Amino acid sequence: MRIDSALLERQLDELYATGAEPDGGAFRPLYSDAWAAACDQVERWMKETGLAVRRDAVGNMWGRFEGSDGGKAVVTGSHIDTVRHGGRLDGALGITAGLAALRAVIESRGKPKRPLELLVVCEEEGSRFATNFWGSRAIIGAIKPGEAEAVTDAAGVTLAHAMRERGLDPESIPSAARDDLGAFVELHIEQGSVLETEKVPLAVVTTIAGAVHLEVVVTGRPDHAGTTPMDLRRDALAGAAAMIQAVQSIAAALGRPAVATVGKLRVEPDQINVIPGRVTFTVDLRHADLGGRRALEERIRSLTGTIASERGLGIEIRTLHERPPVPMDGAVRQVLERAATETGSVPAALVSGAGHDAQVLAARCSVGMLFVPSIGGRSHCPEEATKPAHIELGARVLARSLELLAY
Amino acid sequence: MRIDSALLERQLDELYATGAEPDGGAFRPLYSDAWAAACDQVERWMKETGLAVRRDAVGNMWGRFEGSDGGKAVVTGSHIDTVRHGGRLDGALGITAGLAALRAVIESRGKPKRPLELLVVCEEEGSRFATNFWGSRAIIGAIKPGEAEAVTDAAGVTLAHAMRERGLDPESIPSAARDDLGAFVELHIEQGSVLETEKVPLAVVTTIAGAVHLEVVVTGRPDHAGTTPMDLRRDALAGAAAMIQAVQSIAAALGRPAVATVGKLRVEPDQINVIPGRVTFTVDLRHADLGGRRALEERIRSLTGTIASERGLGIEIRTLHERPPVPMDGAVRQVLERAATETGSVPAALVSGAGHDAQVLAARCSVGMLFVPSIGGRSHCPEEATKPAHIELGARVLARSLELLAY
Repeated sequence: MRIDSALLERQLDELYATGAEPDGGAFRPLYSDAWAAACDQVERWMKETGLAVRRDAVGNMWGRFEGSDGGKAVVTGSHIDTVRHGGRLDGALGITAGLAALRAVIESRGKPKRPLELLVVCEEEGSRFATNFWGSRAIIGAIKPGEAEAVTDAAGVTLAHAMRERGLDPESIPSAARDDLGAFVELHIEQGSVLETEKVPLAVVTTIAGAVHLEVVVTGRPDHAGTTPMDLRRDALAGAAAMIQAVQSIAAALGRPAVATVGKLRVEPDQINVIPGRVTFTVDLRHADLGGRRALEERIRSLTGTIASERGLGIEIRTLHERPPVPMDGAVRQVLERAATETGSVPAALVSGAGHDAQVLAARCSVGMLFVPSIGGRSHCPEEATKPAHIELGARVLARSLELLAY
Repeated sequence: MRIDSALLERQLDELYATGAEPDGGAFRPLYSDAWAAACDQVERWMKETGLAVRRDAVGNMWGRFEGSDGGKAVVTGSHIDTVRHGGRLDGALGITAGLAALRAVIESRGKPKRPLELLVVCEEEGSRFATNFWGSRAIIGAIKPGEAEAVTDAAGVTLAHAMRERGLDPESIPSAARDDLGAFVELHIEQGSVLETEKVPLAVVTTIAGAVHLEVVVTGRPDHAGTTPMDLRRDALAGAAAMIQAVQSIAAALGRPAVATVGKLRVEPDQINVIPGRVTFTVDLRHADLGGRRALEERIRSLTGTIASERGLGIEIRTLHERPPVPMDGAVRQVLERAATETGSVPAALVSGAGHDAQVLAARCSVGMLFVPSIGGRSHCPEEATKPAHIELGARVLARSLELLAY
């Protein structure tokens, strides 16, 4: 099978130019002009590849190549939306490499047994509306009635209004659900630096680690920085600093793939000469399995509580968000590993710390993912890049996987 | 000598009502209506006490009781402005207790040898214009030409314009300077909790610790919180947390009166699922003597540098502000200690972590300060309070001190 690497790279360039921002990166938020232009562009490419294209009620695009004996569809693809200042590959790689793989396998093998489809997911990033996985949630029928009317963007536009402006009818959302999907396989960039560090060009994902987001509020007493001796203070930031240290140490001690991150922090009153009276920070916790993640969360809750009581500080912890880890399908993983081995590479087994549509689609079909290395681990920024040889390898292994699943 | 404690408390109540804010506390920023009303109020009280009142070019008020053989004036008093939501005592106590002490000593001893004066400083807090010690700096002739035109409040009003609105002429500022001051003695609340904790009702201040303000910028790499293993991170906040811990420990290990406070902190990009790439925080350092403070600063610079390099982080430290410690006059301290002992109390010797007009006036005369306890150490807030017995004691010791200095 022949991957047209030059075409793939050119399509990545063209997609990256759609929604290009003057200060770097591309931005294609859901239902924006840039988003619509990118959809039209990919629709043309799908038609040129010989796929029958249709758009569903929320704007997902499906390009289908019929199979000889029907059955459930074998699907590849990714999302077309981006974060602000997004990079060239996140989402775009799964679409363009998916197209390249479909072209290669159809060219080489002709009509498959099972239908082959390319899925262009309308939204995954949540960068316009606070509703991640809008596209894949529509596919599994998980969008609640009234949700499109309830969610607004930063400008106050409802999701429903934005849909209508693109000729989409919020009333029709249930029609986007599918129950005829067999397998979904996605090629994505790693968005981290494990593969690069370990010099492995490809990984088969074992699990998508869901995240728990906690908000921790530490309360002390806001005293005068000059008149309060160190031993009479109840400094909320000093306490929070000890907690941040503890969060790091607990995750580091558990080892990969446990991660814990304090990403947001606010100090009150935030004055140079006042001892902080209140600090609010977030903790993002991820692990490959629910047991490991619960152990991580439990240790963090226990140790931060101890630190607070030792220092006479108040502490409140609430869960902002919780999404369970989703293991990839065992049979699909074996297919991806076999395809990689036949293509001459020994794939790593990796937990995905980032979320992906596959974790949602897993509710309706067998899912699997392939990762290629991210240079410097960079993602969601203009520096996002992967060596062309790694992109070609990923597309080749994806093509062989589709062949194994559909023929 | 008889301190009229009831009158003193009533005057404190009346002053606190002037500029009262609907949501608690009083606010009398420089040259505001509340400030002007408070000045008029105190002027009446001074006249009732038999003082000859005049206002200088910046709006400081001086109430004078002539001495029999002239010489340099013995002065007491404090500032009349407040912070936003300021308390009942900061500044106001030094004015009302100063009046009570003057009344007591004049009533008891009649005409002094040296002139006795009450000084009502127009501004000390810097809560309207970023120009602390405006009043006392005018008295020592330290206001630079053009300064009143250069400084503006949050509404864009220049200090010069605000002066003219109160009938004061910025051109006349140099006339506020005095070279005929002998001693300045101020009674103030501690604004901390050392006296309360140690159950001592009075302190003689040894030194006003100036502060150094540092700004520390820590740079790491902003990676994805889900895809970057703990061992591949360069987390600026984790590094900053270790530095904050170090700052606390260094000051605590040096012991009183060394203090170090991280009061402001900003995280970038401040997103729940992104490892912090940059953290900026401030350090407020104080110590009784310059050598101690320099040692404190040196250790902090060295240890934060080590933490940064161990973690592969960048660090930059710049000095935002530096004011040297000002020791109180030895002879005045002895007078204050003698007066306290004669009044039946054993005063503590305390370093003032907060700044006061005395540190500025020290350039022109011999200065000393008395502190009375702050309940719960609270200050700059509506909860600011001191027991009436402690206020009366403070006024009594102040009166005896003025007697020792002026008769």
